[in-house]
Amino acid sequence: MSTSEASVTRIMVAVNESTIRGYPHASISSRGAFEWTVQKIVRSNASGFKLLFLHVQVPDEDGFDDMDSMYASPEDFKNMKNRDRARGLHLLEFFVTRCHEIGVACESWIKKGDPKEVICHEVKRIQPDLLVLGSRGLGPFQRVFVGTVSEFCVKHAECPVVTIKRRSDETPQDPVDD
Amino acid sequence: MSTSEASVTRIMVAVNESTIRGYPHASISSRGAFEWTVQKIVRSNASGFKLLFLHVQVPDEDGFDDMDSMYASPEDFKNMKNRDRARGLHLLEFFVTRCHEIGVACESWIKKGDPKEVICHEVKRIQPDLLVLGSRGLGPFQRVFVGTVSEFCVKHAECPVVTIKRRSDETPQDPVDD
Repeated sequence: MSTSEASVTRIMVAVNESTIRGYPHASISSRGAFEWTVQKIVRSNASGFKLLFLHVQVPDEDGFDDMDSMYASPEDFKNMKNRDRARGLHLLEFFVTRCHEIGVACESWIKKGDPKEVICHEVKRIQPDLLVLGSRGLGPFQRVFVGTVSEFCVKHAECPVVTIKRRSDETPQDPVDD
Repeated sequence: MSTSEASVTRIMVAVNESTIRGYPHASISSRGAFEWTVQKIVRSNASGFKLLFLHVQVPDEDGFDDMDSMYASPEDFKNMKNRDRARGLHLLEFFVTRCHEIGVACESWIKKGDPKEVICHEVKRIQPDLLVLGSRGLGPFQRVFVGTVSEFCVKHAECPVVTIKRRSDETPQDPVDD
């Protein structure tokens, strides 16, 4: 970390895609976490901050997603990988573009794996001053089935963590969606 | 909340006294939480923030503390009350003075009761943009005996919460002390 790096507040924001079908964009809670960071923390002091966007892609369990696993060729695999990459870049582009508009410095990168484990690992590696996570704000009953990345990171990430709950007027029809 | 209030980021910082005997000052973790807020969030943008210091005093269980309960007179009670008040004000003075030095607006007040309950109640009433809490960063074994205010507030406070763990080089001989 250079001296100039140390002189800004480095905020890591973990972002993911919406789970709503046909909506290939940032999730509602990711956008909420980002907007909160900009409006409440960065404010007009863009030069005092650097935002670090981490997107963790979860590998498909069977590796074939929506195509026929019996007939997947090496070419199919390659296409799949490229498609994932394009989707990840498209997601990060949204946040990077907003940062350019505001004039705040940023970096962004993609990792694969279990989001909660990867986020904590990247915190250890990057040592941000703050980790901002969006959360769907599910009740205890819903949480049992979907788990929550934020609860894990609040406990295990080696930096201060703030969880931004989704606004109730932004909750989709199925609250497990995001 | 007036329009001018809404245009700054209002950060509530819950502060308490040190538990170290003969050290009548802010706790190590309270000071850590405050310094983190100033250095990492407020930075040079003092006019963009307002700090709200809440100190919750825990009533003595028997109401008599270190004097002989059998012979406490109404005058003794009054003195005790005044002494508590003076200690609370002394604590808040430390943070308010620092804010004046930095040029950031602040408010401070004292409440009595169970800290975790009172903090969540005051968050509901005041609606800050962020609640900052210091934490001793105790392990699970120690936590069983001393409880943690921060864990409760992360779950129950109706605003984003960030917990600032005490730096390991600031941990006193007995880590339960603060």
